[in-house]
Amino acid sequence: MRRVAVAGVGLTPVREHWESSHRDLFAEAALKAFDEAGTDEIDALYVSSMGSAILQRQLHLGAMMADVLGKRGITALRVEAASASGGVAFHEGVKAVASGLNDCVLVGGVEKMSDVLPGEVTSSLAMSEDQEYTAYTGVTKTGLSAIIHRHYMERFGVEAEEVAAFAVRGHEHAVGCPHAQYPFKISVERLLASPMEADPIHVLECSSIGDGAAAVLLRPAEEVEDGVEVASTAVATGIYNLTGRPDILTFDSVREAAARALDASGVSHGDIDVLEVHDDTTITGVISLEDLGFVEKGKGAAYVAEGGTARGSELPTNTFGGLKARGNPLGATGLYQIVEVALQIRGDAGPCQVDGAEVGLAQSAGGLGSTCAVTVLRRG
Amino acid sequence: MRRVAVAGVGLTPVREHWESSHRDLFAEAALKAFDEAGTDEIDALYVSSMGSAILQRQLHLGAMMADVLGKRGITALRVEAASASGGVAFHEGVKAVASGLNDCVLVGGVEKMSDVLPGEVTSSLAMSEDQEYTAYTGVTKTGLSAIIHRHYMERFGVEAEEVAAFAVRGHEHAVGCPHAQYPFKISVERLLASPMEADPIHVLECSSIGDGAAAVLLRPAEEVEDGVEVASTAVATGIYNLTGRPDILTFDSVREAAARALDASGVSHGDIDVLEVHDDTTITGVISLEDLGFVEKGKGAAYVAEGGTARGSELPTNTFGGLKARGNPLGATGLYQIVEVALQIRGDAGPCQVDGAEVGLAQSAGGLGSTCAVTVLRRG
Repeated sequence: MRRVAVAGVGLTPVREHWESSHRDLFAEAALKAFDEAGTDEIDALYVSSMGSAILQRQLHLGAMMADVLGKRGITALRVEAASASGGVAFHEGVKAVASGLNDCVLVGGVEKMSDVLPGEVTSSLAMSEDQEYTAYTGVTKTGLSAIIHRHYMERFGVEAEEVAAFAVRGHEHAVGCPHAQYPFKISVERLLASPMEADPIHVLECSSIGDGAAAVLLRPAEEVEDGVEVASTAVATGIYNLTGRPDILTFDSVREAAARALDASGVSHGDIDVLEVHDDTTITGVISLEDLGFVEKGKGAAYVAEGGTARGSELPTNTFGGLKARGNPLGATGLYQIVEVALQIRGDAGPCQVDGAEVGLAQSAGGLGSTCAVTVLRRG
Repeated sequence: MRRVAVAGVGLTPVREHWESSHRDLFAEAALKAFDEAGTDEIDALYVSSMGSAILQRQLHLGAMMADVLGKRGITALRVEAASASGGVAFHEGVKAVASGLNDCVLVGGVEKMSDVLPGEVTSSLAMSEDQEYTAYTGVTKTGLSAIIHRHYMERFGVEAEEVAAFAVRGHEHAVGCPHAQYPFKISVERLLASPMEADPIHVLECSSIGDGAAAVLLRPAEEVEDGVEVASTAVATGIYNLTGRPDILTFDSVREAAARALDASGVSHGDIDVLEVHDDTTITGVISLEDLGFVEKGKGAAYVAEGGTARGSELPTNTFGGLKARGNPLGATGLYQIVEVALQIRGDAGPCQVDGAEVGLAQSAGGLGSTCAVTVLRRG
């Protein structure tokens, strides 16, 4: 296996981009990555997108985006694993270069959620859950998170304020981040005064609708100077339906993917300087922290509330705001996380910089933890 | 790179399976492949499906099907490249085993098209074309094929009867095939008397709506006795919109993928004993024969009409009926082709057997030739 490095990254701000189509956003991110890498000579393209069949009535984004980039002839395809699509596509792209089958691979994610029919985003999100056993009931994905959230508070005697801290921390970190959708602070009080999205989850605990694209150019490590090396990637799945799980407060896929990725990289928890976790709501962020192995089960919310994830702490987490404040353009989100970890390791994180970051981990979840992709990057 | 072999295959009949869901069909094909291979110890699952977001309101089929098979924890994801999804997923699965990153990979495709809302299949097919430049006009995919079909007849002075021969041959070959959707002969006269789907394409020149699943289990070649070896796979893309192509009668992606796959395998055209091409309509079958390099441009229809693709000919093509007569369950179709080539090489093709078949090629197209996957298999 060849070692693989990130030769360039690109992203668009997460916004309601009313004047850009998904091809525009994809091209913007891709061209930035080409520019950084000093090459556009890709031989494969992995596109991650979740909802385009519903939101844009568009499939076949691999061939489409290859054409948009003028890269006709190359291998191109779309990878989909719900909101983990970006992390999973990265895994496939790394495999392509590591194996020697490709020499220069672009992995790009895009989602365009703002100018669509009412209800279609909620509907697309529900499609990450089982239509025959769960989604047909009409429950939303946030509704399912609410069951987890309430159960968590009750079992571990956790207060709403403690879980809410995850979103408050994300907003703190997003301040000054040019690509964040909501780069301003919110208070716990304001969050708890916001309307209920699905009791006990408040609107300000949920990631929201946003458009964006992120891209990473991968090359063999020996061809990239001063690069960021891919230490490991892993993708794991868990029991699909919440009703089938022995414990709905544990995401087995996160545990499995983290164990595999850390084992393969030789990196230990204590080595991680910067962490990006999948907080599509506050509670999934908290549980991810725990199942990744950084905090004991049931202690995650208190850990965040006490400052454990702050930029100056031992475990700076969601350093550009996370899904909540940077934004969550579904199929692109996993790649935003990876780009952000790369920026930290390069020292290019501007006001979001974590001093001396050398090793980072990004965790992307599909559905309610039924797929998890974990990526470990380190200074090359 | 390790050599990779097909350790087991499985498929369901292509039918209107009103009493089976897509998970039922997927499981049936997968369990057959496990049974043949004598193992179900997979460490990765690639699922190909095209239309499930629209047809079943279901995304995230990787995690879902891993769970259906009881394979929680494994790496699982969905690959989508319109109707080439099956061939492209196979390419990814082969890469996973060839690289040594996985040791036992199931690639399974599924599509469930019969019990859906009216118009949704046509609508899903149109999503393989560009929504902003082409599909928004309301043109169907068959409508676009009709432009190609008429232009082909006019430029090369070809008669409707000659193009029709492609479908007639497919039906001849499907006779006796237990998994074919339409295992009976049709005549050129009957075809030309059938209603126009999109002038000059008759209904009996089009592949139709069908449900099915096909699966292939891949392992390192040295661990498979008497297996079928994967000689090579290649995926290429072409100009996305017909309006952007210098010649709409040439599918560049097919030329490129064929050149790469043949080059990588060391197999030449003359070595191919059995061929499966993507005939979603008669004309795409004809053009595929040409762009794969087996017949001169403009001569494909006559070649078929004169018997060039018959079972006893030098180039037995679509030996179980092809998309037209075996059926075309979109995301699974590319895997049906690969399973069929494997059955031929193993000598397990029953009444469809091509005597002495040792090397075969399968070609799967997404959109109107904007993606092409080519797979070459040979006796192991």
